[in-house]
Amino acid sequence: MVQHSPTHFNASFAALADATRRGVLEQLARGNASITELADKFDMSLTGMKKHVGVLEQAGLVTTEKVGRVRNCKIGPCRLEEEIEWMSQYRRLWDARFEALDRVIEQLKSRDKPNVRKKR
Amino acid sequence: MVQHSPTHFNASFAALADATRRGVLEQLARGNASITELADKFDMSLTGMKKHVGVLEQAGLVTTEKVGRVRNCKIGPCRLEEEIEWMSQYRRLWDARFEALDRVIEQLKSRDKPNVRKKR
Repeated sequence: MVQHSPTHFNASFAALADATRRGVLEQLARGNASITELADKFDMSLTGMKKHVGVLEQAGLVTTEKVGRVRNCKIGPCRLEEEIEWMSQYRRLWDARFEALDRVIEQLKSRDKPNVRKKR
Repeated sequence: MVQHSPTHFNASFAALADATRRGVLEQLARGNASITELADKFDMSLTGMKKHVGVLEQAGLVTTEKVGRVRNCKIGPCRLEEEIEWMSQYRRLWDARFEALDRVIEQLKSRDKPNVRKKR
């Protein structure tokens, strides 16, 4: 499997494990927004949104910059490249396991065939 | 973005946000194992491993079956298909945003060029 930093993966997957945070990412991928705008958009308190943005920032998925009294948010350097690679490799292992199982079943079926013919 | 069940995504991403649980998935993708074997392999108490397997089972990533006193584990029906699709779409939006930014920079550069020539 992919060599990766366990701590980084823990942070990015934990950041994705919340519907609001995934929504914020989708939103920011379409355009920058302030924390106030995000709080309004997701019908949430400023404090609540600050926490969510903090979790995304820790994972490298969002960066923020304070301009005067406004904290602007944009998508961060992490574009989930390694995470997608890890999951794709897992899926390939998954497929390989079940294909192997299918082959065993096919072999068992073809082994049974001559007996079936004899009975006829 | 992909239409998905928020609750399912919360569970699967939360399940992946732990290095031991990702290790257990990699292990089970290569072959079935009992909870006792997994606890030994990851140098963990039986109670600790039971909790991790429970989180993976809740997310559909692992299924377990009790045979006598042994609880056998194998990879579950969820092969992270929708999760990979959501993340890939996010990455495409990410790339599109930065490509758009690059184009703006290129346009600004080419607009500056005649002035630079005049100065020469």
